[in-house]
Amino acid sequence: MALIVQKYGGSSVADADKIRRVAQRIAATKEKGNRVVVVVSAMGNTTNNLIRLAQQITSEPDERELDVLLSTGELVSCTLMAMALRALWYDAVSLTGAQAGIQTDNSHSRGRIARVDPQRILREIDAGKIVIVAGFQGMTSGSTLEADTTTLGRGGSDTTAVALAIALKADACEIYTDVEGVYTADPRLVPEAVKLKEIGYEEMLELASYGSKVMHNRAVELGEAYNMPILVASSFLEAPGTLIHGGVPMEIRNKVRGIAQDLNVAKITVLGIPDKPGVAAQIFQPLADGGISVDTIVQNASINNLADLTFTVARTDLAKALRVVEPVAKSLGAREVASDSRLGKVSIVGTGMQNTPGYAARMFTTLFKEDINIQLITTAEIRITCIVDEALVPKAVRALHKAFELDKLAV
Amino acid sequence: MALIVQKYGGSSVADADKIRRVAQRIAATKEKGNRVVVVVSAMGNTTNNLIRLAQQITSEPDERELDVLLSTGELVSCTLMAMALRALWYDAVSLTGAQAGIQTDNSHSRGRIARVDPQRILREIDAGKIVIVAGFQGMTSGSTLEADTTTLGRGGSDTTAVALAIALKADACEIYTDVEGVYTADPRLVPEAVKLKEIGYEEMLELASYGSKVMHNRAVELGEAYNMPILVASSFLEAPGTLIHGGVPMEIRNKVRGIAQDLNVAKITVLGIPDKPGVAAQIFQPLADGGISVDTIVQNASINNLADLTFTVARTDLAKALRVVEPVAKSLGAREVASDSRLGKVSIVGTGMQNTPGYAARMFTTLFKEDINIQLITTAEIRITCIVDEALVPKAVRALHKAFELDKLAV
Repeated sequence: MALIVQKYGGSSVADADKIRRVAQRIAATKEKGNRVVVVVSAMGNTTNNLIRLAQQITSEPDERELDVLLSTGELVSCTLMAMALRALWYDAVSLTGAQAGIQTDNSHSRGRIARVDPQRILREIDAGKIVIVAGFQGMTSGSTLEADTTTLGRGGSDTTAVALAIALKADACEIYTDVEGVYTADPRLVPEAVKLKEIGYEEMLELASYGSKVMHNRAVELGEAYNMPILVASSFLEAPGTLIHGGVPMEIRNKVRGIAQDLNVAKITVLGIPDKPGVAAQIFQPLADGGISVDTIVQNASINNLADLTFTVARTDLAKALRVVEPVAKSLGAREVASDSRLGKVSIVGTGMQNTPGYAARMFTTLFKEDINIQLITTAEIRITCIVDEALVPKAVRALHKAFELDKLAV
Repeated sequence: MALIVQKYGGSSVADADKIRRVAQRIAATKEKGNRVVVVVSAMGNTTNNLIRLAQQITSEPDERELDVLLSTGELVSCTLMAMALRALWYDAVSLTGAQAGIQTDNSHSRGRIARVDPQRILREIDAGKIVIVAGFQGMTSGSTLEADTTTLGRGGSDTTAVALAIALKADACEIYTDVEGVYTADPRLVPEAVKLKEIGYEEMLELASYGSKVMHNRAVELGEAYNMPILVASSFLEAPGTLIHGGVPMEIRNKVRGIAQDLNVAKITVLGIPDKPGVAAQIFQPLADGGISVDTIVQNASINNLADLTFTVARTDLAKALRVVEPVAKSLGAREVASDSRLGKVSIVGTGMQNTPGYAARMFTTLFKEDINIQLITTAEIRITCIVDEALVPKAVRALHKAFELDKLAV
């Protein structure tokens, strides 16, 4: 009997009707003779509503308290799913993150899974039950008295599912969501985008981290680390999805697999700082201490021993980042701190790009022909990213999708 | 430093404003130099809303799943309360029932507290924190993997508070609610009802079980068993409440302490059953097996070896009880099963009534003068109850309140 881990996202369990419909899909999987473990997210907008509730109390809710508060969203959905299955005469049991053995470190609001102890899950499966696990949450180590609830951060339910699939040595890990799979570009921007049958972990990571919000990045990384194939498919349709795995054959004819975009980008430029060792550290260490992720960093050539340092942060971090950078820049004698919050990223992604020249040139030429000014460029092994005016991102994505002939991929 | 356990009910924490107001009261208690443990119920109608949600999935939700679902209501309110206190710069921490050491048996939806292990609470208090405990919930024994969430049944937060006060050897246990204390009668029925300064455990139990919905009965029983005084007071006003304790001096002038009523009463009469041993057991055992509590039981004198058996059940149990009783009555050869669901109880309650004649007579005379027909009578050590037509209950309560001069009690 195969063991299958499935995950259903918040929009798939947004109300009682949808929960009942998903219960039928789970029952069908069980009927095929599989052992089934299901991870569910909180219903619809529950998590955001809980955050709003906390913010009615205080603008800066304590992270430990917020974790317990947010964890209730998944407790609600997993108990309702178990009830729905029992109403269909399937024996089902819901488990909290703690009961499912999801043990994390002590980082509240961004708990990292330390280990998974699937004892209880295995016992329930062996008793013939369908196990419904509350996603997104875990528990610190310790007794029932001492262990504290943690959450894994946004999208953590994907991570729960992949971690459980690994710990249970599952035969399949299936992520059901409101998209049908991974496309060559965001179908809302590019109507002719094509759904990929399969994609490599690395490619998926680059697409996901650049805004193709199909599934959570950490979950893909986890799948890659343990070589667990992950199927992403629609929770509403029966259409085949996209399999994320390590065995994707190197493409020959078309080596760019997808175009990604991200609108949550802001740029900070510190002008006229002394070009000497240690200056970068003085700027970036306090940002790191403040929990602000810095993405692209560019330093221009020094003139008169003065340089300009440009870097990007998430737009949502811009105000916080400026509060950190401005006093530092002043103490370094910088001339000015400038910022621009209306930027976006477009990226081309593909394993085939490695060690193959010409991709960057074709990307820049395409954007040039569309009259799109490139503000910053970064590259990674299987990705080239250009930062452009936010308003030009859709145009850039469409042009690149066409230039790399992604619309001509066989479905 | 005194240790005080406070409990705030659902209407006291119904929204963010109310939570902030209660947080200020808690902070004031802390400011007086006390160590403070607070138990909170779920916000407003949360529990009912969660039950409704479950019923959208299935008409008979599994009790284990329902327990986890309902427990989320108190998790939400206790985390918000901790946040509200932190926003006032008080160090506060929320604990689940499990973390608070509330260990129960395995009865879902009506867990009984087996033991309380207050280790974690004590550690948090010793660290100077205000501890906010999720009421109404506990955990079965076992590791974090194996222990399951239970709930204590409706009103279980009162029980949580009293149990914690006992386990912590608290100096005071204070139940804050939307009433100001215990009155000589329901103030909605009897405007001249008087708030009692103190009341004995037994008297409180008789008043509460007969409908003076001030606090949960089990909590009062628990207080009595461990001789823990319980203060009931308003969570909105600063008015003094009612102290429930064991040391109430025997009253001399007025021995009736209060008038209680209960409208949730139905009567079942089995007519013409053989008057022989074992018949009562044949009727009441299946009712007990079906979880139906039978209250007053009256059997009339036998004529031609045939008797009539009358008993009352909660009105909400009537349909279920009839389904159980009718086939049994038939098999016993009973003539008929009759029922009446429009009944109510009125009771006079007071420790001073023990071994003192004349109370029953005065009660019956009072009702007779008001032209109220008494259908059944039951007595307990400190209570006399008459079952009358539901519509006449308010009139009966007012007449008895006056007849026993409760309106003349000093406030």
